[in-house]
Amino acid sequence: MRVDHIGIAVEDLEAAKKLYGEVLGLRLVFEEEVPTEKVKVAAYDGGGMRIELLMSTSPDGPIGRHVASRGPGIHHVCYAVDDVQASVDRLAGAGVRMIDAAPRPGAGGCRVAFVHPKGAMGVLVELSQHPPGGLHHA
Amino acid sequence: MRVDHIGIAVEDLEAAKKLYGEVLGLRLVFEEEVPTEKVKVAAYDGGGMRIELLMSTSPDGPIGRHVASRGPGIHHVCYAVDDVQASVDRLAGAGVRMIDAAPRPGAGGCRVAFVHPKGAMGVLVELSQHPPGGLHHA
Repeated sequence: MRVDHIGIAVEDLEAAKKLYGEVLGLRLVFEEEVPTEKVKVAAYDGGGMRIELLMSTSPDGPIGRHVASRGPGIHHVCYAVDDVQASVDRLAGAGVRMIDAAPRPGAGGCRVAFVHPKGAMGVLVELSQHPPGGLHHA
Repeated sequence: MRVDHIGIAVEDLEAAKKLYGEVLGLRLVFEEEVPTEKVKVAAYDGGGMRIELLMSTSPDGPIGRHVASRGPGIHHVCYAVDDVQASVDRLAGAGVRMIDAAPRPGAGGCRVAFVHPKGAMGVLVELSQHPPGGLHHA
């Protein structure tokens, strides 16, 4: 179990790309739009893990709602796991409150499940199992 | 520039250690108290970077104030840099609002400086230069 990426909710993706790419000097690894999550993503190499900048394409998407209620900022921490169903079963068995009782398709061909922030002390935690052969956008 | 650690503000360090160590199954790498920051830290291996659980030892410490206003959750992202003074100069030169105009001593023998969340789109960013020979608590 290792950190796969940190998701950061931003209001202006172009301004955020300037900060992370030009000012902080991180390397852009991919950009994509994920219509099911109503989000545009710009992912940067944070050294063995990614910083994913997330801009909502709609006020009613999960990132749009987060920005409206909490403002821009760190949205979630994603851990890469070998078997997401096994991880979900283990956490649910330990009494941890989950958002997803069963894994669902995520970006890049991953299978993902979210732990409820109330189950992880205020942190939205994503569990992600990469597809065989690696991320489709990588 | 790579992510060194994520700092997570917690209210109950023992309960948080149970979640990260026993339920999520991460490996504890060090524990320490940092009196200057009024914080107890438990650091876990997130795969080349650390998850640092931070519990305030005083309501008027930075973590205590954060928890009082925002609740527990992700507090900051720290990047390891080779020369923290050079990074501060570069960011300040690019017009990024800093908390620390000059580096100051951090935990483990590091020299650190914080970027203001208003300078980094709602994210509290720490820059950290490790001491020669590695972290003192590592």
